[in-house]
Formats: sequence, structure tokens, C-alpha cells
Amino acid sequence: MSLDATLSRIDEDLPAALDRLMALLRIPSISTDPAYKADCDQAADWLVADLASFGVKAQKRPTPGHPMVMGHVDGDGPHVLFYGHYDVQPVDPLNLWDRDPFDPAIEDTAKGKVIRGRGASDDKGQLMTFVEACRAWKEIHGSFPCKITFFFEGEEESGSPSLIPFLNENAQELKADIALICDTGLFESRVPAIMTQLRGLLGEEITLTGPNKDLHSGMYGGAAMNPIRVLSKVLANLHDDQGRIQVPGFYDGVPELPPEIKAQWDGLGFDHGAFLGDVGLSHPAGEQDRSALEMIWSRPTAEINGITGGYTGDGFKTVLPSKASAKVSFRLVGQQDPHAIRENFRAWVQAQLPEDVTATFHAHGASPAGQMTTTHPAFEQARGVLGAEWGFDAAFTGCGGSIPVAGYFKSILDMDTMLVGWAKDDDQIHSPNEKYDVESFHKGIRSWARILDAIR
Amino acid sequence: MSLDATLSRIDEDLPAALDRLMALLRIPSISTDPAYKADCDQAADWLVADLASFGVKAQKRPTPGHPMVMGHVDGDGPHVLFYGHYDVQPVDPLNLWDRDPFDPAIEDTAKGKVIRGRGASDDKGQLMTFVEACRAWKEIHGSFPCKITFFFEGEEESGSPSLIPFLNENAQELKADIALICDTGLFESRVPAIMTQLRGLLGEEITLTGPNKDLHSGMYGGAAMNPIRVLSKVLANLHDDQGRIQVPGFYDGVPELPPEIKAQWDGLGFDHGAFLGDVGLSHPAGEQDRSALEMIWSRPTAEINGITGGYTGDGFKTVLPSKASAKVSFRLVGQQDPHAIRENFRAWVQAQLPEDVTATFHAHGASPAGQMTTTHPAFEQARGVLGAEWGFDAAFTGCGGSIPVAGYFKSILDMDTMLVGWAKDDDQIHSPNEKYDVESFHKGIRSWARILDAIR
Repeated sequence: MSLDATLSRIDEDLPAALDRLMALLRIPSISTDPAYKADCDQAADWLVADLASFGVKAQKRPTPGHPMVMGHVDGDGPHVLFYGHYDVQPVDPLNLWDRDPFDPAIEDTAKGKVIRGRGASDDKGQLMTFVEACRAWKEIHGSFPCKITFFFEGEEESGSPSLIPFLNENAQELKADIALICDTGLFESRVPAIMTQLRGLLGEEITLTGPNKDLHSGMYGGAAMNPIRVLSKVLANLHDDQGRIQVPGFYDGVPELPPEIKAQWDGLGFDHGAFLGDVGLSHPAGEQDRSALEMIWSRPTAEINGITGGYTGDGFKTVLPSKASAKVSFRLVGQQDPHAIRENFRAWVQAQLPEDVTATFHAHGASPAGQMTTTHPAFEQARGVLGAEWGFDAAFTGCGGSIPVAGYFKSILDMDTMLVGWAKDDDQIHSPNEKYDVESFHKGIRSWARILDAIR
Repeated sequence: MSLDATLSRIDEDLPAALDRLMALLRIPSISTDPAYKADCDQAADWLVADLASFGVKAQKRPTPGHPMVMGHVDGDGPHVLFYGHYDVQPVDPLNLWDRDPFDPAIEDTAKGKVIRGRGASDDKGQLMTFVEACRAWKEIHGSFPCKITFFFEGEEESGSPSLIPFLNENAQELKADIALICDTGLFESRVPAIMTQLRGLLGEEITLTGPNKDLHSGMYGGAAMNPIRVLSKVLANLHDDQGRIQVPGFYDGVPELPPEIKAQWDGLGFDHGAFLGDVGLSHPAGEQDRSALEMIWSRPTAEINGITGGYTGDGFKTVLPSKASAKVSFRLVGQQDPHAIRENFRAWVQAQLPEDVTATFHAHGASPAGQMTTTHPAFEQARGVLGAEWGFDAAFTGCGGSIPVAGYFKSILDMDTMLVGWAKDDDQIHSPNEKYDVESFHKGIRSWARILDAIR
């Protein structure tokens, strides 16, 4: 059978596929709130039944938290594991929603039809694009394109407490040739993107202490060292005037962008003017010899996320404070070692302190960057077929944040992950009035059919 | 009659003088709290009656707030105006007091007898040292040493809202050759000090804005300019590595210390190690080519009194904030012009801002330094006689803070002020368990008798 037949089947079945998604969206599976425990369970049951309806051997699998859903089908060719999550974010503030978040609807908007409701994009709508592609394939071919494991989590929005134990306990059942995750978006809402670079994150809180109590600046001002003054000097030294981070050894393990990836990124026509213009800025503030895309995807950063010291209320107090503190985070790439950077940062701060000022440090997490290994042929196969669906060549892109499950697949199951998804920048995930474009859903299903056809 | 007779009379009368002070301390004249309005009025009445008891023509004079007390006596020689205030600070937190703040008592302590109670030092005890000296003089001589105007305010602890109008409306009656104020202390609790240099104060609040809303550092980190980073750079530039302030023109109008004053200060044996050691510091943090006393008395300063931006609560948020702000104050000396410095500071900040960051400024007060003119012979006459009472030569000293009334006497009445007082560093003014040493009270009365004898 040809791919065209599968694509046609997808087109014909779209109304029914939307109905199925609506049914799943009506289940308020908010994982973080114990009041919705039964709803999470019901969403898992719904998925088991839906997978079974087109021949997948599916089960609900208990955890100490919300259940996992596992399904298996046999087939020739590579073994792929597809991961998605059926739980959703809370809906507060409810008064900012234009409709009941769990009474979803198709709405006409100036930009086209959208599916409105909590989870429409993150991640129920995205998850179902893969499920619907498999259903259509099966209906046309009578079999599946390859061996597939379906793996749906119900705790992604609440920190995934059961995930690591479950991966460890079920490693053999879960291990595949490659993992597919549909929880990311199109580049600039139009270009299909396979996310291959995820930055890591290191958080540090510094507290500097000068005098042993708050002083009156009339009495001590001029003679007593002010810790805000010292903290400002230290933080001012974080970046040089070219935006380069000054902590010794910081760039150890930072790779140069491979030429083929750089070429792909240059070809994306990223409009950094619009990206920054949306938030009232115009000038990329990172390393001045790097492109804006590199700054947010492939280069490490140092950011001051918070600072406080002295009197910060209304009016004025002439206090000379005892303490000042700042929260600093580093986005990490490549092989940067979070623990080495933490130690280097602390030593670098200490070395700048004058007499009479001491520092204490508090660690806030440390995760290394996720650099996807893209040597599995599925990566180039997928990249090669997505252009036909979207009208733009697909690219291997980067991401400022991180997707922990991809890291666990690598570290626990020694399995590479291909992150590809159809969300748009304005989907308002985690916010009121979340939506998923019908175009994302429809072309997303077709895209998975193309990918499955290419990699089988 | 000799001075000795007056001093003897003061010694004999000390128990009665303490009883009088206790009576005044029992009146809870808290000026800032309307609940104590009648008590403020009663304190004024008490002073009128006490002045009248030894021949002063005294009156309570109404204002829109609490009344002033004015008294006059004739005499030969110079005309002096004595200023003090009969109102006191609130007593909160009351649970930190070891006794009822308005049930004063003489207590024995390891450092000698103290008068314990709200206002014992600030300023009822200090005010009464002058009154008691005049009473003793009158009793011995039958007349007063010179023409004296007594002027007591009841709103000093609540911003003196009625003072300037009252000075303007009663300028002719108040104008004297020199004003005396007893609201300051001994240097290091032992050396008699005539305070001649009061620093001014200029307050500024800067708010820097980068992005037009708070951003997620995962998405924008690296490309979007962070206003905390810019604020740190600006504040880091306030002082160079020698502690010198970098705002252009800042040192315009800053005088060098006259050699005779510098000699006096060098002779004080100021123990900056103990001064800083008390608050956990060891190294004077101001201009490195200046002595610690100069840093706190005669040199201008720039101090960061508060800073805030981004997330400052518990834990960590990877926000890239829209705004960051700081409160900065400058202590001013000599002829430094607060308004010129404000403009220069703002321009200096603006010139450091990168593209995409804007600054707004909020002014928080601007008062010039008070440099007492010490040409009136009373200054050297007083300085010459205090050593005999205290065992240390008196010095013309400086002060980090400001005493606004002395500035108004100069600007409105064209009258110089001699600030001299007997408070000690541990008097805990404005705090629980305020006290005044019986030694301060007794030697203070004797000191005024010596000064009046010298200047008449």
C-alpha cells in the first residue's frame, strides 16, 4: 500500500479523530491535585481502550502515583518507543478562561480552527497525533509499520516522581532502538523541528555578609563595607563587555556547532528582531560573536534570576545592610560539567571578596545538557520527509530548556530520543485558554505517517 | 561670685534636679501618636512652670501641632538661644523594656548610676542640663549670665512640621547671637565634643527596565538583556578600587579638612578597630587615602541602601525579570550641591545603559551638608573650658547624620549653632531601655555653667 492511501485515510477520518481527542480532553486529569486522582485513572483507562480498539495490546500499569499506560505491537523494521503524557496542568486562574477548560470545542479564529481546552496541545493533542497515525496505518495496511511500544505517563506535569523507578523496573520491556516524543513545537510555528540540543541548568544562591547587623548609614556610611556594593561588583564581572562569561573553566566542554547544523539554522531565517521585539527588546544580549539562535539554543548562559538586599519597601531607609543575596543560574550545553562549574563559580566569587565580606552558597539543582545523538538513521529519514507536509525543510534545532525524560531514556535505557512536535508558539500551554490548531493535529497525524513510512 | 560657687550649688542640688527630671520623664509626650496629644501639652506646661520657678518669663505658644515653649531672661553680654525638644519617641516594642518606660528610675549598673526611661537622654535629660545650670546660676548670682532665650519644641521626633512656619513667624523674637543645642553626645562616650560638621543627604531610587515583561530564562536566556545584570554593572562603577566615587563632579565643593581640625581629630585617638569590630568588621571601606574619622565625618559617601529584582523568595525560579531597582544615598559635605549631584548621577547612570534598557528615577529628599561656622568666640570659649570638667580636651567633631534645626537657624534666622551634648553611645535612644548616665546629667549641668561663665 502506498503512503498516499494512509494520508487519505487520515484526511477522511479527521472528524472522528477530533471526536476521540475531545473525549480525552473532557477528562480533567490534573496530576498535581489529589482531588483529580480518579480522573487521571480514567484517562489511563480511556487510552488503554483506545489503543485496544485498533489492535494494540495495552495495559494500565500501577505506580505509587498515577498509572502508566503501556502498549505493544509487533512489526518488522526498527523498534520504536513512543512517549507522551496524559496528565495536564491545573487550570487556575479559572476566571481567565473563556470557556470551561474541560468542555473542549473547535473554535473558528482569525488564524484558523483551533481545539480549545486544557491539554489540547500539552500533551493530549500531540500524543494523539501519533496514535491516530498508527490507527490509520493499521486500517489501511492491516499491520503496523514496525515494532512499536506505546508508553504514556500520568505525572509529567507534577515532577514525574514514579518515572525513574518505573524505567529501572521495566527496562527490558521499554528498551527500543529509538524513542519518539511528541511534546515540542514547530520552529516559529511553521518550520518542522527535530529538537536535538537541550540546555542543562545549574542554580546557585549567593549570600554575602558584611557587618554582623544592619547599620545606620549616617553613623557607619563610608567606613563600613556594604555587601550590596560587593555583590554588585561580583555580578558585574559575570560577563565581559562582549557577553562572555568570566567564571574560569566555564567554556570547558562547550562544543562548536557542527557546520551542517549551523547551515540548517542559518537556513531557518530566524527573525530575532521579531523574537526580541515581542518583549520590547531589539539587541541580542549574549556573546556578541554568536547568532541569536546560538545564544538561545547552543551557547551556555549565566543569568541573574533574583537579587535582594537592604531596604526594598516603599520610601527610603538609610540602612547599610548586613547581607545581600542573589540567585544565579547557568544554562549548560555540550559536555559542561555542572558540578565543576558550581565549584569554579564559588571559588571565583570567593576570590573577589574584600576583607570583611564572607559568602555562603546554596545549591539549587544541577542538570547537564542533553545533546541528542542523531546517528540513528531515523533522524535524517524523518527530517527528509517532513518538508513535504509543511512546506519548509525540517531542521535539527535547539531548546533553551530541558526535557528530563529524554535524559532518562539515555541514561537508564541507553536509548536515543527524537523530539518532534507540532505545537505553535501561541498555544498557551500551562496558561488559560490553551489551544491546539486543527492544522497541528491534522498535519501532525500525517507527519507521523510520513515518518513511520520513512523509518520502517 | 565665682564659678566654683555655682558648681557647688549644682552638686548640692543634684538630688532635687534629678527629681525634677523624673517628673518630666513621667509625662508620656510621644509626639507622633495623636493619643498622646494631651501629654505633649502637659509636658509643655510643666516646662513653662519650671522655667517660671526661677524667674524666666515663659509661655506655651500654640502651633497647628504640639505647642512650642518660649522663655526669656535679660542679661548682659551675648544673647544666646537654647533649643531642646520635650517630645519623645514611641516605646514599641514595649516587651523589650525592663520597666515601664514612663515610670523612670535611677538604676545602679556596672558602669555607674543611670536614669532609665523614655526621653532620659533624648532629649529631656539633655535639655534639663541647661535649665538646671541656669537655675543654679540664678540662685547664686541673683541674675543670669547673659540674655537667654529658651526655645523648646514638641515635634522633633515627628518631623517638626510646625518648626519652619514658627521660625518665620517669630524670627525677630528668636534671633540671637548664637544658638546652643544639647542633643548630641560625647565622642566615644568620654571626650566633650562640639559638633561642627553635619553631612547632608541625597536619596535616589533607580529602576531599570529591560524586557517589557518577566521572561523565562530557558526561552530567552542568552538573548534578552537582563536588567539586574545592567544594574549590577552600574552600581559596581559607583566606587573605584580606592573607594572614590565615580559620579562626575561629585567632589565639587568638598573642602579639605582645615589643619587645626585635622590635628584635633588626630588627637582624639579614635579606635577604628573597636568601632568596626563592634559590628564584625576590621577594615575601613571608604577612600583609602583618608582616615576612618574622615570617612564618617567629613568625607562624602555613596551607599546602596537597597536592591531588588527578579525572584527573591525561597527556592528558585528561572525568571529573566523585566525590572530591577536600587535605592542609593549620598552623604554630602561642605558645599556639595545635592541638586547638581542628583542630575549628574542620573546622567551618569543613563550614559552606562546598553541598548534596550531604560531607567526611571525617583527622588527621595535632598539636604545639603551643615558646616557650622565657628567664628563666633563662644566656640573656642566653650572648647577651652570643657576639658576641666571631663578630663579630655574638647574637639570640634563631625557627624554622619544631620540635625535639621541647626540648618533652619542658619537659613531663616542667620544664626550659627553650637551643638554640644553629653549623651553616650550606649544610651539606646529611640530603642527600648533608653537611659542617661547620672554622670552625663551632673557633669552636663556643670559643663553648661562653665560655658555660660566663659561666654558671658
